[in-house]
Amino acid sequence: PKLSIFATIVSNLRKLQKSEQDMRKLLHSVKVAIALVLVSLLYLLDPLYKQVGENAMWAIMTVVVIFEFYAGATLSKGLNRGLGTILGGAMGFSAATFAQEVGGMGKGNAIIVGFSVFIFGGAATYSRLVPRIKKRYDYGAMIFILTFNLVVVSGLRAENVLELARERLSTIGMGFAVCIFISLLVFPTWASDELHHSTAHKFQVLADSIEEFLESYFRLDKENLKDDQPSSISSRCKSVLHSKSKDESLANFAKWEPWHGKFGFYYPWNKYLQVGELLRDLATMVLSLKGSLQSPRQPSSSLRQSVKEPSEAVGLSLAWSLRELGESLMKMRRCPQENVILPKLKSMRLELSSMVSPVSNFGPLENVEGLAIASFV
Amino acid sequence: PKLSIFATIVSNLRKLQKSEQDMRKLLHSVKVAIALVLVSLLYLLDPLYKQVGENAMWAIMTVVVIFEFYAGATLSKGLNRGLGTILGGAMGFSAATFAQEVGGMGKGNAIIVGFSVFIFGGAATYSRLVPRIKKRYDYGAMIFILTFNLVVVSGLRAENVLELARERLSTIGMGFAVCIFISLLVFPTWASDELHHSTAHKFQVLADSIEEFLESYFRLDKENLKDDQPSSISSRCKSVLHSKSKDESLANFAKWEPWHGKFGFYYPWNKYLQVGELLRDLATMVLSLKGSLQSPRQPSSSLRQSVKEPSEAVGLSLAWSLRELGESLMKMRRCPQENVILPKLKSMRLELSSMVSPVSNFGPLENVEGLAIASFV
Repeated sequence: PKLSIFATIVSNLRKLQKSEQDMRKLLHSVKVAIALVLVSLLYLLDPLYKQVGENAMWAIMTVVVIFEFYAGATLSKGLNRGLGTILGGAMGFSAATFAQEVGGMGKGNAIIVGFSVFIFGGAATYSRLVPRIKKRYDYGAMIFILTFNLVVVSGLRAENVLELARERLSTIGMGFAVCIFISLLVFPTWASDELHHSTAHKFQVLADSIEEFLESYFRLDKENLKDDQPSSISSRCKSVLHSKSKDESLANFAKWEPWHGKFGFYYPWNKYLQVGELLRDLATMVLSLKGSLQSPRQPSSSLRQSVKEPSEAVGLSLAWSLRELGESLMKMRRCPQENVILPKLKSMRLELSSMVSPVSNFGPLENVEGLAIASFV
Repeated sequence: PKLSIFATIVSNLRKLQKSEQDMRKLLHSVKVAIALVLVSLLYLLDPLYKQVGENAMWAIMTVVVIFEFYAGATLSKGLNRGLGTILGGAMGFSAATFAQEVGGMGKGNAIIVGFSVFIFGGAATYSRLVPRIKKRYDYGAMIFILTFNLVVVSGLRAENVLELARERLSTIGMGFAVCIFISLLVFPTWASDELHHSTAHKFQVLADSIEEFLESYFRLDKENLKDDQPSSISSRCKSVLHSKSKDESLANFAKWEPWHGKFGFYYPWNKYLQVGELLRDLATMVLSLKGSLQSPRQPSSSLRQSVKEPSEAVGLSLAWSLRELGESLMKMRRCPQENVILPKLKSMRLELSSMVSPVSNFGPLENVEGLAIASFV
């Protein structure tokens, strides 16, 4: 009974989340619109405009570019932008000064500047193609190139580069502050929550799929059920299977997110990726089991009846274990049934090894999984 | 013999491509650096600077932001930027004019402008979250918001908005022209080539995996081989399995790329995605077969010997079919062995249905695949 309550809670949560997803999109749009209006005030209100002037442009640009759906993404982009601007500005200024010292105001200066643009632009572009840098600092490297280039070439023209840099940085800072304030403090959308829920949901999906598979396998005689069930299993397993890149970007954003709710600093987000990997392996197996349903040649129903009982026992307890694990992950506590699950899976394996069954692949994998989760929660 | 030549060609191509990949990254960096120097000339050369002035900044910004690794990506971003700028500029100008007509120069004006920023900013942000728009026009929508906002608020200040818009557009156009010229005409890196090669390569990987699986399955007695073979199969199958999002973005870029080499306009890139989907299904099955290798309980070697011959026959002809199909896809011609492959797979299925074998899932799937490819090339 407790488990079925959990199941309904999770499935209702997901249903709610579907319509909630729309609400969150709307909310995000309103938040961005508010941020835009706030930075536009720099233009619209005379006293503010007298302070910042045309540089208000950079505040607007900052908001448009860094305000992302998840709070972690906004923070990551904002910090990248800040870092890239400061680094690019400082190096651009040094390069411009160097060019002026060495080349004077004439042609030599322009040649040195052009050369430095070539070298720094090329090197920074190459660094953007290195996977490790691309993953976390792609945007920062882009802003570095942009700022370096703008500063080094205007060093040739503008007298007061430092003044210009100070003003621009301060308006970028204003844009950043507005974004962070609205993104993190007003109904924040956390990538960490999303990753947490979607991982727990995957356990649920796989448990459902295993149960549905068992059901349709053992009543194939009723042909009408054959057509739709497997495809729903397969589409849901595939959604688990193809969650890799989404999980990775969520984990990446989650790492940037500050302490909030139940997640502390240095929360082990990589464990989620490992659990996700195991779940994807399991999805592969469920998918291939499902494949056997579509095969034109099916074992006779008497043969099927003979393996029905043990297979169902195995499948149902697998589904049960998955639900238990999903629940304990969701609630972030050590799985209370841990002492039950592991021995149960082990005895199941022993039983299975006494007969050949299509489910025999599961034993070892589930075991590994149980261990991984137990050590995680 | 012909096939093995093809196999060595493909595997050498891939090895070459690994080091070629580095070369291409270097090439891309140099191309970006050249583009940056070219647009910096707008600042560096006096006669040019007199023409464009501070607006040269926008040319630099354009190059930094739109120059992407694949030619199709650059083109798509550039067109998005152009479209977003023009649309945003036009609507921002209309909104600014409207505000001036209705609200005069005072407070009313500022309120109308602020309101329009809220409405357009929010609506465009929401549109960026719609999957279909996000996929192809995300960047354009972002630039729309930016331009609209900048134009509508400066309408309050600048007298000559039209003049400003014209100058900015022309410098953005210069940046775009430089990018397109260098990206498309100087050693272009086509997303379409990449998609084409990687799809053909997947056939090869799966064929290899099936052969390796057979090999290690039928000589499990030599324990030393057991450890490394399966993991190499599984990592390669997983690379096929997780290629979905990469394929999708490549196909997306490829659609933007103009006629070149062997690819015409309206080349059916979606077929590649369908073929990729089938190959991923196949990879799922190979992976689950591999899973059976790691199971602690193995069938006795006499049982294994009894199924050895038919299984090997099936597996090898599957691998052969995959190679043939991959080769014909690579060379873009109708598969010459089409008349051979289909009947062969059909007869294999008949044979298989007379016995229970772990490979029995393959029959129908391969059939579908054969048909898909035949209709495609």
